[in-house]
Amino acid sequence: MLDRLHFPSRIDGLGSIRIAQPAAITKTARRGHELVVPDLAAAIRALGLEDGAVLSFHHHLRNGDAVLCAVVDACARLGLRNLHVAASSIFPVHAPLVPHMETGVVTGLCTNFLSGPVAQAVSRGALQKPVVLRTHGGRARAIAAGELVIDAAFIAAPSADALGNISGTEGPRACGVLGYPQCDAIHARKVVAVTDTLADYPVRNIQIGQDRVDLVALVDSLGDREGILSGTTRPSEKPADLEIARLATEVIDASGLLVDGFSLQNGAGGASLATAKAVGERMTEKGVTGGFASGGITGFHVDMLEAGLFRILMNVQCFDLRAVESFGRDDRHQGMSASMYANPHDRGAVVDRLDAVVLGATEIDLDFNVNVTTQSDGTIAGGSGGHADTAAGAKLAIVTSKLTAAGFPKLVDRVGTLTTPGPTVDVLVTDHGIAVNPARPDLHDRLVHAGLAPKAMAELHALAQSQAERAPTRSEDADIVAVSEYRDGAITDVIRRT
Amino acid sequence: MLDRLHFPSRIDGLGSIRIAQPAAITKTARRGHELVVPDLAAAIRALGLEDGAVLSFHHHLRNGDAVLCAVVDACARLGLRNLHVAASSIFPVHAPLVPHMETGVVTGLCTNFLSGPVAQAVSRGALQKPVVLRTHGGRARAIAAGELVIDAAFIAAPSADALGNISGTEGPRACGVLGYPQCDAIHARKVVAVTDTLADYPVRNIQIGQDRVDLVALVDSLGDREGILSGTTRPSEKPADLEIARLATEVIDASGLLVDGFSLQNGAGGASLATAKAVGERMTEKGVTGGFASGGITGFHVDMLEAGLFRILMNVQCFDLRAVESFGRDDRHQGMSASMYANPHDRGAVVDRLDAVVLGATEIDLDFNVNVTTQSDGTIAGGSGGHADTAAGAKLAIVTSKLTAAGFPKLVDRVGTLTTPGPTVDVLVTDHGIAVNPARPDLHDRLVHAGLAPKAMAELHALAQSQAERAPTRSEDADIVAVSEYRDGAITDVIRRT
Repeated sequence: MLDRLHFPSRIDGLGSIRIAQPAAITKTARRGHELVVPDLAAAIRALGLEDGAVLSFHHHLRNGDAVLCAVVDACARLGLRNLHVAASSIFPVHAPLVPHMETGVVTGLCTNFLSGPVAQAVSRGALQKPVVLRTHGGRARAIAAGELVIDAAFIAAPSADALGNISGTEGPRACGVLGYPQCDAIHARKVVAVTDTLADYPVRNIQIGQDRVDLVALVDSLGDREGILSGTTRPSEKPADLEIARLATEVIDASGLLVDGFSLQNGAGGASLATAKAVGERMTEKGVTGGFASGGITGFHVDMLEAGLFRILMNVQCFDLRAVESFGRDDRHQGMSASMYANPHDRGAVVDRLDAVVLGATEIDLDFNVNVTTQSDGTIAGGSGGHADTAAGAKLAIVTSKLTAAGFPKLVDRVGTLTTPGPTVDVLVTDHGIAVNPARPDLHDRLVHAGLAPKAMAELHALAQSQAERAPTRSEDADIVAVSEYRDGAITDVIRRT
Repeated sequence: MLDRLHFPSRIDGLGSIRIAQPAAITKTARRGHELVVPDLAAAIRALGLEDGAVLSFHHHLRNGDAVLCAVVDACARLGLRNLHVAASSIFPVHAPLVPHMETGVVTGLCTNFLSGPVAQAVSRGALQKPVVLRTHGGRARAIAAGELVIDAAFIAAPSADALGNISGTEGPRACGVLGYPQCDAIHARKVVAVTDTLADYPVRNIQIGQDRVDLVALVDSLGDREGILSGTTRPSEKPADLEIARLATEVIDASGLLVDGFSLQNGAGGASLATAKAVGERMTEKGVTGGFASGGITGFHVDMLEAGLFRILMNVQCFDLRAVESFGRDDRHQGMSASMYANPHDRGAVVDRLDAVVLGATEIDLDFNVNVTTQSDGTIAGGSGGHADTAAGAKLAIVTSKLTAAGFPKLVDRVGTLTTPGPTVDVLVTDHGIAVNPARPDLHDRLVHAGLAPKAMAELHALAQSQAERAPTRSEDADIVAVSEYRDGAITDVIRRT
């Protein structure tokens, strides 16, 4: 056959041509190739990980996740050092990281949310390199841009088959949507599905395909189901929360956005859900059908979907079991990657289509800058997650807050850490009144017209100061232990040792 | 805030740091940004396409597709020349491309399947540059590897919303799975959703997300629904097809592969489905539950799924309306990208997990090389599609064929075009007997043991020659009009002008 292949000049333009010898072509080498290794140590050896490796993890298992620590433990036992943990969030359950930080097994960390003993250890200077705190969209951007290069992504997989197809809806520790590890799966040098539930091939409801996965590592358990998802998430009924919910609903209605197609995001806490509930009641009164609700999704959102208040849910992460069940069953309930959710440098993120987002704050200052990263004593206890992303995208970014917490003022001169820049925050709603960002005179006028009597930020600030019993602590000169990176990669603030 | 940012030396290792000025940060520029343009001309202008651009298209609309020609027409009207059309398949409906080839508007073409008037025009030398014929997996590989760089992917979208989310299951021309354009959406420089059905945001059943789409171009119609999908696809009942189906089933059973977890791919033609039906009946008799059936999926596959013969369908393309309906409803019926289906350089393709594939042939030669690209007169009338991919992946690649067609022998000394190399073909099944590739003595022994009395390939070949009324035509010296590229990028053959 091939002896008659003599290409004339007109075939140029095809680039270099490699002539196949049919007799040398065989069945593909990967045919029947099994990717399963019996444990994490075998996976780490097979990957050839070395000192200094960047290892990534997702947080869909939340405070029940056993995978991150198990991987780092296994690396430590194999003598690896100077690792960089690239997590999407760190929870109290990750406390076993602390000794590894202290002994130099882990010297770098980046995450979108940092809480619990690891946060406290970072704040006291236990990590060699400053932590990089990103937003959910910023992490996706950094990975896609090659700023954050991941050597190995360890993807906790509620179920996986022997070829590496990953499902979030199957298995005893199903967490539903797998929005955060999608960019890791695309861009990491190596991808490991870590599972306690090896399914028959092919697994159902594949969310990350075998074309992205190098190895399947078996573990006894992905973690504690109770910590992964709560049974239910319900709206708060505390009076202060209900007053904030009522005022936030009035602001949304007065803004003119509460028409058919309205889109909303709110957090999963009881106070946030109280606002969602109040907004839903107003939608029912007005006969408004919303376009979508987005973000981390709870059973309460599912209720709203099923009541016809929203046409679609856009879900980057399930917060409870009812959300998992609905996601697996209802095609109006759609998953999305962190990049589709919030990446500012992609072709269009879902947050950019939000009408209203209802956000919390640890502190908010006179310029409407918000801190959800550090406590009043300067200790790290959070991070943006999607806070800065949704504020930047939404037409109406509402920050809700009480005036004080634990004796500290929540309205301050300057935030301890700048997480979300004031120019992206439109309005503050407290249980003592509303303040509109001066950059939004149009919104101010609408609220006045609706009889909501917005106050000056300075007035609410003064009230908070008068009610406070103590002042925030600021470390101005101590070593930098973390930087707060905005969604586009710029550093908005540094966080110092406490 | 920012005047107190003086980074000490220990922050090095973070790379170059850009300090944000919070006052300069604003709401994201894409907030509320609409991507919709009223027609294809507006899209082409907005993209800034130039002479020589590479434009890609998918073939889920099959012989009903109006999008490819509409885009090229619009380019021609705007004066563009020297375009390269990177299609996943070309059908008779694409005949209007021919005049554009003759006038130099289109000078390059690559595709995985080439039929109808465009194929005939290419065969007579109407295109300036040789066509590159790839496999479905090879096209995904070439795109991911940067060998095939796409300037703009025009993705026919049965429904899309104003932010570019694409659904294959919504709209009057729903085609179900969108497996082929997935790699285009990831790798093309620009991506356009072309739709006749603009949905409320967000559209249901998003298969390509807004994070990948630059523009949404409106058209009156994606094409002719009748050409897109047939109402039903049913097994053939012709005696020769039934005999081949019976023998193929015996071969599969004798191979030892017909046990729980068995996986099968077959084509969508009536003869292929007759084999699938016969295999299904054998599975029922033996009480075997298959793992999955893959490939282009028909209503007949859905029947097999619903009858419990297979646990899962892995679908790269729907061939009929029943498959579309099932895909939208049944989570055992899963979509996959062309890359996940068949890319030989990805981390693991579904074809590599196939037990048996049943394939057709225009010609097969003494070395088991198969031609599904050119007719006996040398004219192009097809191409690999998934033929070479599945043969390479499957444990048992069965080629079925009659001995002659239209008076030409189908068993030949040497295939007119080498599409699928003999070393990846295990067995030939004809209505006059079976021949096993000598590279598979194990299979030969199994068939003998099962009483199937395999014949020598030379014997069947001689029988075919004796029944043939005329001989194939071979152009040995004419200009090269196309090259047949194997899935890994090697050229296995050239195709000459007829």
